[in-house]
Formats: sequence, C-alpha cells, structure tokens
Amino acid sequence: MEGSHSTNKGSGETAINISESKSTKGKAPAAAAAIVATTKAIPHHHHKGGWNRGFSIFDFILRICALVAALAATTTMGTTDQTLPFFTQFFQFQASYDDLPTFTYFVIANAIASGYLVLSLPFSIVCIVRPRAAGPRLLLLIFDTILVGFTTAAAASAAAIVYLAHNGNPNTNWLAICQQFNDFCQRVSGAVVASLIAAVIFIFLVILSAVALRRH
Amino acid sequence: MEGSHSTNKGSGETAINISESKSTKGKAPAAAAAIVATTKAIPHHHHKGGWNRGFSIFDFILRICALVAALAATTTMGTTDQTLPFFTQFFQFQASYDDLPTFTYFVIANAIASGYLVLSLPFSIVCIVRPRAAGPRLLLLIFDTILVGFTTAAAASAAAIVYLAHNGNPNTNWLAICQQFNDFCQRVSGAVVASLIAAVIFIFLVILSAVALRRH
Repeated sequence: MEGSHSTNKGSGETAINISESKSTKGKAPAAAAAIVATTKAIPHHHHKGGWNRGFSIFDFILRICALVAALAATTTMGTTDQTLPFFTQFFQFQASYDDLPTFTYFVIANAIASGYLVLSLPFSIVCIVRPRAAGPRLLLLIFDTILVGFTTAAAASAAAIVYLAHNGNPNTNWLAICQQFNDFCQRVSGAVVASLIAAVIFIFLVILSAVALRRH
Repeated sequence: MEGSHSTNKGSGETAINISESKSTKGKAPAAAAAIVATTKAIPHHHHKGGWNRGFSIFDFILRICALVAALAATTTMGTTDQTLPFFTQFFQFQASYDDLPTFTYFVIANAIASGYLVLSLPFSIVCIVRPRAAGPRLLLLIFDTILVGFTTAAAASAAAIVYLAHNGNPNTNWLAICQQFNDFCQRVSGAVVASLIAAVIFIFLVILSAVALRRH
C-alpha cells in the first residue's frame, strides 16, 4: 500500500513538472526528463525519511525530558534527610531515604534510568542522522520497554509507601509518620511524581519507536 | 535494502532451478519457466510470512500464559481472607485484601489485565491468519506497553507492602504482621509473584511485536 501511494505521488509531481517546463518554454525535453527522473527517484525516500526524522527528533526531545525527570527523582529522593529539632513519641529524630528499602530501590532504579537515558542519546542522534536505520530504533525500543518496567516499579512501590506514610493503616496498626516528618514526606512525594512522569515518557518513547518502525 | 536482498535471493533460486531442469533433461523449457516463475513469486512473501506467523503463534501462546498468571494473581488476592481463631495483641481478628488500598488496586489492575488479554486474543489470531497485517500488531504493541505499566505498578506496590508486612520497619515503627497472619501473607506473596510473571510476559510480548514489525 505504501509503495503504490508513493508511486501515485511521484507521477503526480511528474505531471506538474512537465506542465511547468511547457509554460516556461525555455527548457529542452531532455532537461524536463532529467527533472522527472529526479523527482521520481527522491519523493518516496524523502517522504518516509522526513516522517521518520520528525519522529527521531521528537524522540530525542522526549529523552531529554525523561532524563530531567529521572535525575530530579534521584536527587530529590537521594538528598532527602530531615532531622527533627525536638523530641517526639518516636525514638529516632531523623528520617532519611535509606530508612526504607523501597526508597533505596527507588534511588537505584532512577539512577539506572538516568544513566541509560544518557547512553541512549547518541543512538537517538543516529536515528535523526539516518532516519531509515531500523537497527538502533529496535534496540532503543527493547531497552525502553524494560526501563518502563523499572521506573514504573520504582514509582509504584515508593507511592505505596508514601501513601502509607501519609495515611497510615488502622487495620495493620501502621501509624502515619507525615505529621512528624512533613518536609520529608513532601520531598518524597515530589520524587515519586517525577519518577511517574519519567515512566509515562518511557511508554510514549516505546509507542513512538513502534510507529516509526511500522513506517519502515 | 530488504527489497534488493529478496531479489538477489530470488535470482539465486532461479539459477538453481534452471540447472536442475537441465540435469534431469526431461522437462520442456516452458515447464522450467513455470517453476522459475513460481519460485520467484513465492519465496520472499513466504519467507517473511512464515517468520511472522511463527512470531504470531508464539505471541498467542504467551498471551494465554499471561492470562493464566493475571487470573491467578486476581483470584488469589481477591479470595485471600484469613480469620484468626484466637485473640492477639491487635484488635482485629480478620485480614482481607481490602484492608489495604494497595491490594485493592492490585486486584483491579490484574482484573483489567485479564480482561484485556481475553479481548486481545482475537487480534492475535488475526495476526496468525494474516501474518503481514501490521495494523493489529501495532495496536497490540501500544496496549501491551500500557499494560506493562499497569501490571508492573500493581506488582511493585503490592510487593512493597508485602515486604513491610513480612519484615516491618523499625524506623517508622511499623511492625511486621506476618507472624499473626501467616497464611494471609503467603497467599499475597504468591499473588505478587504471579502478577510479576504477567508483567514480564507483557514485556516479552512488546519486544516480540517490535521484532515482527521490523520484519514487515
């Protein structure tokens, strides 16, 4: 179907070129034939290459957005450390991300996502320079899919713990700790949101790559 | 590149067929030409169609596996309900999945995944019957990617809570409840593992669809 479409387009442009050369009446038929040959050879390649280049540029921009989100999530969570200036009913006076194993995993997963995104930028540039290269695109799609799992898992598990820290759970006698560690909870919630944004961008990247692959 | 490759292959097979018909010396040139025409028409289509059909059948089998895993996760978590026969230090005597909002989300997400998988089976069959159809494959890939996010989020958040139920957390004064509700915890852990298996199968489904799309 794609092939027949481009052929139609090529012949359409051919007709236009012939009429143009007739109206100017200065060119030899050989020159017109040369123009026809050029326009017939280029449009199919150019048409698909242009679309794929657009996809690749959008892919590159989305990757930078995801990198910013993942880095923000990592640093926000990693530097969260609240020391209370007064005694509470709890024994500890300090809340840090490594008090909870889930938050440690969160920092590691988002750091891995940031590192992967930095490494994937050159491949994304290859896709911009060579829009018809399917290999790097497929490679990016596969790793993006795995990273969807990683970042979603990090965001979801941290969200479950943050929810518990905010609301507590009377059935299991787990009390909310956010009354005491309000600043800590706010920073952690921000990190979870940033990670969730990164996960959603990863899903978009996978869909974008798939649509671009389908057009090859 | 794909086009030129198949042409080379076609002409290669053509040469073999001509030499074969010469060695048998019993066939008319017309018959040889007919064989050449057949071998020229079929191999490219058949070659790629065969591969894509194989991918589609594997896709179908994986979908059924994922359906079993998602259904197992839903039913295991949904029917988990332990009533203790004795008094404990806690006030409640019963543990059910809807005591924790995370587990309620888990049941809903896995039920959605099961429903989606049932609905996706006809599309997978379309891909088997018509191996060269890219539309349904792309559609499945997009929804599979979103479902990767859903099931991973469900599994990860439930895993974070189950970990807490098993180990507790001294920093936040959240005590482990699995000493009391051992049966409950074991069933919930099983459900988390089943959901994790479903999530991994979804990732494989996305990669499989992408490789099949690249071959179109």
